[in-house]
Amino acid sequence: MANAKQGTGEIEVEIEKLYCLNPASPNLPFWPNQPQLPNEEVRLRYRYLDLRRQELQDNIRLRSLTAATVRQHLVSNGFVEIETPMLFKSTPEGAREFIVPTRKKGAFYALPQSPQQHKQMLMAAGFDRYFQIARCFRDEDLRADRQPEFTQIDLEMSFVTPKDIQHIIEGMVTSIWDKALGVKLTKDSFPHMTYAEAMTNYGSDKPDVRFDMKISEIGSSFADVVGDNALDCMVIKQGTSLSGKELKAMQKTLDIENEKGFAFVKINENNIDAWPAKCGGTLRQSTQIATSVPGLNKDLGIEQGDLVIVHTRPRYLYGGNTLMGRVRLHAASLMQEKGLLKLDKEKFKFLWVESFPLFTPDEQGIRTWQSTHHPFTAPFNEDIALLSTEPAKVRGQHYDLVLNGMEIGGGSIRIHSPVMQTYIFEKVLQLEKHEYSRFDHLIDALGGGCPPHGGIALGFDRLMAILCDAPSIRDVIAFPKAAGGKDFVVNSPSEVTTGQLEEYGLRLAE
Amino acid sequence: MANAKQGTGEIEVEIEKLYCLNPASPNLPFWPNQPQLPNEEVRLRYRYLDLRRQELQDNIRLRSLTAATVRQHLVSNGFVEIETPMLFKSTPEGAREFIVPTRKKGAFYALPQSPQQHKQMLMAAGFDRYFQIARCFRDEDLRADRQPEFTQIDLEMSFVTPKDIQHIIEGMVTSIWDKALGVKLTKDSFPHMTYAEAMTNYGSDKPDVRFDMKISEIGSSFADVVGDNALDCMVIKQGTSLSGKELKAMQKTLDIENEKGFAFVKINENNIDAWPAKCGGTLRQSTQIATSVPGLNKDLGIEQGDLVIVHTRPRYLYGGNTLMGRVRLHAASLMQEKGLLKLDKEKFKFLWVESFPLFTPDEQGIRTWQSTHHPFTAPFNEDIALLSTEPAKVRGQHYDLVLNGMEIGGGSIRIHSPVMQTYIFEKVLQLEKHEYSRFDHLIDALGGGCPPHGGIALGFDRLMAILCDAPSIRDVIAFPKAAGGKDFVVNSPSEVTTGQLEEYGLRLAE
Repeated sequence: MANAKQGTGEIEVEIEKLYCLNPASPNLPFWPNQPQLPNEEVRLRYRYLDLRRQELQDNIRLRSLTAATVRQHLVSNGFVEIETPMLFKSTPEGAREFIVPTRKKGAFYALPQSPQQHKQMLMAAGFDRYFQIARCFRDEDLRADRQPEFTQIDLEMSFVTPKDIQHIIEGMVTSIWDKALGVKLTKDSFPHMTYAEAMTNYGSDKPDVRFDMKISEIGSSFADVVGDNALDCMVIKQGTSLSGKELKAMQKTLDIENEKGFAFVKINENNIDAWPAKCGGTLRQSTQIATSVPGLNKDLGIEQGDLVIVHTRPRYLYGGNTLMGRVRLHAASLMQEKGLLKLDKEKFKFLWVESFPLFTPDEQGIRTWQSTHHPFTAPFNEDIALLSTEPAKVRGQHYDLVLNGMEIGGGSIRIHSPVMQTYIFEKVLQLEKHEYSRFDHLIDALGGGCPPHGGIALGFDRLMAILCDAPSIRDVIAFPKAAGGKDFVVNSPSEVTTGQLEEYGLRLAE
Repeated sequence: MANAKQGTGEIEVEIEKLYCLNPASPNLPFWPNQPQLPNEEVRLRYRYLDLRRQELQDNIRLRSLTAATVRQHLVSNGFVEIETPMLFKSTPEGAREFIVPTRKKGAFYALPQSPQQHKQMLMAAGFDRYFQIARCFRDEDLRADRQPEFTQIDLEMSFVTPKDIQHIIEGMVTSIWDKALGVKLTKDSFPHMTYAEAMTNYGSDKPDVRFDMKISEIGSSFADVVGDNALDCMVIKQGTSLSGKELKAMQKTLDIENEKGFAFVKINENNIDAWPAKCGGTLRQSTQIATSVPGLNKDLGIEQGDLVIVHTRPRYLYGGNTLMGRVRLHAASLMQEKGLLKLDKEKFKFLWVESFPLFTPDEQGIRTWQSTHHPFTAPFNEDIALLSTEPAKVRGQHYDLVLNGMEIGGGSIRIHSPVMQTYIFEKVLQLEKHEYSRFDHLIDALGGGCPPHGGIALGFDRLMAILCDAPSIRDVIAFPKAAGGKDFVVNSPSEVTTGQLEEYGLRLAE
């Protein structure tokens, strides 16, 4: 009797003989199909059982399909897949990479954080379209959803503009979304935004544009109290529904309880014409309230029932986000929970963010500037003259691919001139000779008539987590590490013998 | 004027404007197109220049094409590509893998020598057709043509016989040879041979069958002096052309100058009927010469002008080759140089070698047996009963793919029963509990109802060297290490700072 309701309902098997090839232990730690699964540590320990769950089966199989789609797209566009070394060189300044001792005492390899240097050398070598799905490593504290080893889709091209590279990636992503999800993306699915726009309007260099709730810079309306600073203003429609408790909790989570210049006001019939007077901080002292508010209310669409949030900040923007940008994400999530904010009907909102500042004030405060991304990024041609005069204003030919507020890839046109590369090391980044001499081979390679080139890398694990709608990248990796880098399957990292250490000329420190 | 003789002779470019995007230094260490190239160290140091040579360009591009062909074949046969961890676990008994310190003092990862354990766990997890083009590592002394990191085509299947796996590989290799070389292989291109046949007839477990020159075991013809031993005999047609000096040099190279039981005789009109009498050793004392020689001359086709070589050896064969096997290869190369030995007109002679003994006498002499390949190989079903009585006679379900006398791949059906796996660890290999407990996760995985499974791994670098007809695997790797594991491009391995070592809880030994 055919039963169309069952997946295999049209097939009937008559069993003549049945025997068991390999019995399963009756004492398995859990059954992959049991409704209540044990905690993640147990599931990671018995990963080979957990992987039998349909969800993980589907994820890992989709990962394979996606890798095949990536390769198919790139190969058909003339790319050559080239394997670069895993046993690379330690860079003492970095100190975040894994080192690998050798039996020559005191001599170490290191595992690569990316194939960056090798792919640039491949451009110098005349492989004008390189790609690799590359394993990379970083020895970081494994907060959040990070892995000590991860995979990236890495490519590099010669004689290109950012547009050429973006075109390749858009085609690739379109192909992936089609094959994996049946979602048809178009040329219009990939709008562009400058870093300045992203930071000013969304308070983030990877804005989530699935919802509007833009930030407006309104400093000129209250110039008498704001002065040279900027004033960010964000209107949350129907935001009065956020309780005082929720707003307090938000400030605590974002660690902005004592932030001067941060204030909000719930708009009602009484304050709508003079709401800055009800704000904390200096804003209420402005003499421009009466003249500015009507225009602002009109421009920003401020109505009764809205919540208006303001924050005074320095005008110069750098880094990944502003305070208002963080507030925007947090508040949006609260409003979504209340059903008062709807995301765009398009589930996937891509965005190219570009025109980043090439340099950012040095975090450690030792030097003036550090590279916003890495020191190989080329400046805008029209900004080259500013390198020696106003480095802060030099824009880099860097571009990030952002999806739903997450950075899924980043790349740049690289510096191809050994003279400019050395100038940036020496004069802008103020590195000592011994600090940048570890890039001698790269500068040498550029000096061999290396063509202009650029590339990009996409985080494959993150991309797969999005495609699989998985809460963690651990759900798209066959054998992931747990927090702290622990591998519960094989119980690693683990001790080695004194004999092994001796072979490598090492001893454990006391 | 079109010029068909030139590659681009049909195209004429009219230059309107010419400018240089990036000048090459006039002091390059060498020009990739100069006729006399500098030594390999210089070329490895400036690999990005050397890679511009057409030969290396072709090799690396063919490698990419071949990887794509491999993937295409496997994916279309239902295989799923799955990445397994690079940060694996140290196995103190092995001591040949690279260890990777972590910031938890005394705790180490290790880089994997192969994905063997993970791919077996994937079978337990229900991924019935897995593959990966996997980077692997071994910390060996880099004699000959070896790399500390290398790439293998790795696959595993559930519910299969050796034939199923061989069928997949034959299809894959046929597809590669077609795409890369335009060579059409057929089903007949992959004959089979048992280990016993290979060792007896060719003195090697990876026989080069591009030429005949077989070895014959003729002990029974001289049983009175050979006794329980075997007597290998090889006839080199026209071998009298090998000079005494050449034969002496051969013995020196093979380190068999003092080998008892090794002897040779040049056949001439005077000795053809009693040549064993002219041999060294005990053979000349045989009373069977007169009765045996006429038949041998007929069976082995011995004629005047031939060289006959004999060697008395123990009857029990194990390991990779016999003395006569090494002599066969050396002599064949001499005869080829003289134009007296022609290789088969088919340039590529593949061979499946199978029915290996599952165990081999322990090299270190500590225990009785070691696994011939690895401890996960399943015995022949019909030999299971011999495990407890005569381990020497147990054949393993292992198979090597041999090409032109080189092993290019090896695999096996694995043990899927945790009981049998434990029995072999404990009873046959006589390992202590703490020695095999490092495989607990694997035994656990088998115990979860793991399907019967098997697989194979092919050395990708070696395969590419053959396809590219390259003298060294360094010629098919973009950035290879030099002898001793040195990377001349980035000057690695190199020192790390005391600070880095401290982070990893390590000190250099005094």
